[in-house]
Amino acid sequence: MNKRLRIAQIAPLIERVPPKKYGGTERVVYHLTEGLVARGHEVTLFASGDSQTTARLVAPVTEAIRLGRRVHSPEIMTMLMLQQVYGRMLKEFDIVHSHLEFMTFPFAAVSDVPTVFTMHGRLDSADYQKILRSYRHLAFVSISDAQRRPIPDINWAGTIYHGYPPSSYDFNDAPDDYFLFLGRFSPEKRADQAIMMARACGIPLKIAAKIDPADREYFEARIRPLLNHPLIDYVGEVDETHKRYLLKNAKALLNTIDWPEPFGLVMIEALGSGTPVIVRRCGSAPEVVADCETGFLCESRMDFINAIRNIGRISRRHCRDEFLRRFSDSSMVGSYESLYYDLLRQRFFENKINEAERIPPSSETISRLAGSAEIK
Amino acid sequence: MNKRLRIAQIAPLIERVPPKKYGGTERVVYHLTEGLVARGHEVTLFASGDSQTTARLVAPVTEAIRLGRRVHSPEIMTMLMLQQVYGRMLKEFDIVHSHLEFMTFPFAAVSDVPTVFTMHGRLDSADYQKILRSYRHLAFVSISDAQRRPIPDINWAGTIYHGYPPSSYDFNDAPDDYFLFLGRFSPEKRADQAIMMARACGIPLKIAAKIDPADREYFEARIRPLLNHPLIDYVGEVDETHKRYLLKNAKALLNTIDWPEPFGLVMIEALGSGTPVIVRRCGSAPEVVADCETGFLCESRMDFINAIRNIGRISRRHCRDEFLRRFSDSSMVGSYESLYYDLLRQRFFENKINEAERIPPSSETISRLAGSAEIK
Repeated sequence: MNKRLRIAQIAPLIERVPPKKYGGTERVVYHLTEGLVARGHEVTLFASGDSQTTARLVAPVTEAIRLGRRVHSPEIMTMLMLQQVYGRMLKEFDIVHSHLEFMTFPFAAVSDVPTVFTMHGRLDSADYQKILRSYRHLAFVSISDAQRRPIPDINWAGTIYHGYPPSSYDFNDAPDDYFLFLGRFSPEKRADQAIMMARACGIPLKIAAKIDPADREYFEARIRPLLNHPLIDYVGEVDETHKRYLLKNAKALLNTIDWPEPFGLVMIEALGSGTPVIVRRCGSAPEVVADCETGFLCESRMDFINAIRNIGRISRRHCRDEFLRRFSDSSMVGSYESLYYDLLRQRFFENKINEAERIPPSSETISRLAGSAEIK
Repeated sequence: MNKRLRIAQIAPLIERVPPKKYGGTERVVYHLTEGLVARGHEVTLFASGDSQTTARLVAPVTEAIRLGRRVHSPEIMTMLMLQQVYGRMLKEFDIVHSHLEFMTFPFAAVSDVPTVFTMHGRLDSADYQKILRSYRHLAFVSISDAQRRPIPDINWAGTIYHGYPPSSYDFNDAPDDYFLFLGRFSPEKRADQAIMMARACGIPLKIAAKIDPADREYFEARIRPLLNHPLIDYVGEVDETHKRYLLKNAKALLNTIDWPEPFGLVMIEALGSGTPVIVRRCGSAPEVVADCETGFLCESRMDFINAIRNIGRISRRHCRDEFLRRFSDSSMVGSYESLYYDLLRQRFFENKINEAERIPPSSETISRLAGSAEIK
């Protein structure tokens, strides 16, 4: 039997855990933390003070930085948090799991407690790859195989797909006749293509999407002129309840997104509702959607049009089953749990092997590592 | 005789060294680096690729971030630079001197090569003080005694005033009859008070100041209405040549600034030209200006008015002499050089004392510290 682990989860401080509205990373951290607590682990969540959790919460800021009053700088608050984790508190943990990426690297590199990094973003920037390569020995988790393709040569400990609780979505086998576009109006989401496709096929399209201030100009110039059409129903930005309702009643999610998204959370939300996904073959899409089984992977305009026409061939029950099998929170939590045990076993055997030749760091070194004031 | 040192200077990447226009930190780093090279040291300057230096330049970005094309994130570029310094290249240095502050702390804390930190900003934020205290054992240099007052309880290695080359300013004992306000139009600079004082005393005031986009609204509402007066001459934003001309011909610098500025570079630029400084008694002012000798320290409106009336009592020659004695680049460079030697001597004796009990880090530890790819 595996022992109960003492786990530190480090979340970004920008949004609370779970986020009030958007914020995929913080929502995943929420479900992961809840799941680990439910399995009996002793979890400490480092996150903003307005976070909700059944774990022990350690909060370097009272409110999520995006919403709260001005702090000196997000980077400084993040560094204070990392010092707490890797300084005085480190002896309280068997494993650290960071969702922050690069700011944590220098701390993790000198820590005796292993750190797991979940990479939440794109990895195709040359600058970012340089920094990843110089910390390549750390343990990285990708959220899709596609995500790691630009940089295969670092220590990937595995791919673990995001998962959400099955109870968050209602299975529905008798949808309405509309298709759904869900997300944001930004150029790479290609809402314009979803609209053109709906008009070409003569199908109703509901659009639930927010407009970020940065995308306002794009929206006015490129999207708003397309909305005034009897088939197109723009319902604005929606809350969780409304989203759940729109998802389960949609004939399909029309996901015209055109960028290598590391993991498309909206796709698993659709599948969880029994709603198939029509998506461009890019990024994580081929890993989330099985072509002709839980939706369609499209490349050309004709592919999209054929997919819309053939959507009745997809079993909605199968979509929900695949969600339960591959994208539930418990499947995600179980994968991380196994990974933690693997890393600890690995570290244990490395230590055994190195024991004879290995010299433990002096207490002076340890105190310097952590910043002297952090150690008594 | 002291040995030649191998010194790493780490500059911010936001501006080039020296900056094209504004940027006090980068200008100070420039003169310090040039001075150390002139004294025969082997200096490596880590800075943006468009920097100018006689030292060896190592540049993680080709252009200053504020001007150049978009990089992944300034923090990532900064971390790459820090890895270069503290990773593979560390053995090339006897001492590291960082002008970056907190991003460098975790690297410096585990480095065997001592790091000197020059603190360039205000230190009165509680968050920032927390992080400083947890790295309090590092070696900090304040740029005025006033700057360190909010946090006296960290390892201050000394106060070293900024210095500029005497040749950058022309001494002039026969000025025109105008007073000068030089800087930016931001609320804490109180250009409005300088204008009111000039009008109250009936003296001509030249204003050379830039308007940052952030201050545009303040300028239009609070300053522009005051400019339309026969005594007030707003000359716009000026280049170095124009500034030098305005400084040497001014009867005095009217520095109505109202915030605890850690070091007022504009004051030493005035003194270098033989121009006395009338300044509010706050921040570094009492350390830079000797009351009734190189200018006047003022608290009330009456103090300012009396200072303007009595400006003829100040010897311009004495102002220049005090600049030469205390605020030349060579005095700054000499102080840093002594500090470097002090730290190395101190580290040497610490090592001697600890030698018996001290266990050197294993090569495995060293390679983990630096990021394994950085070490062969």
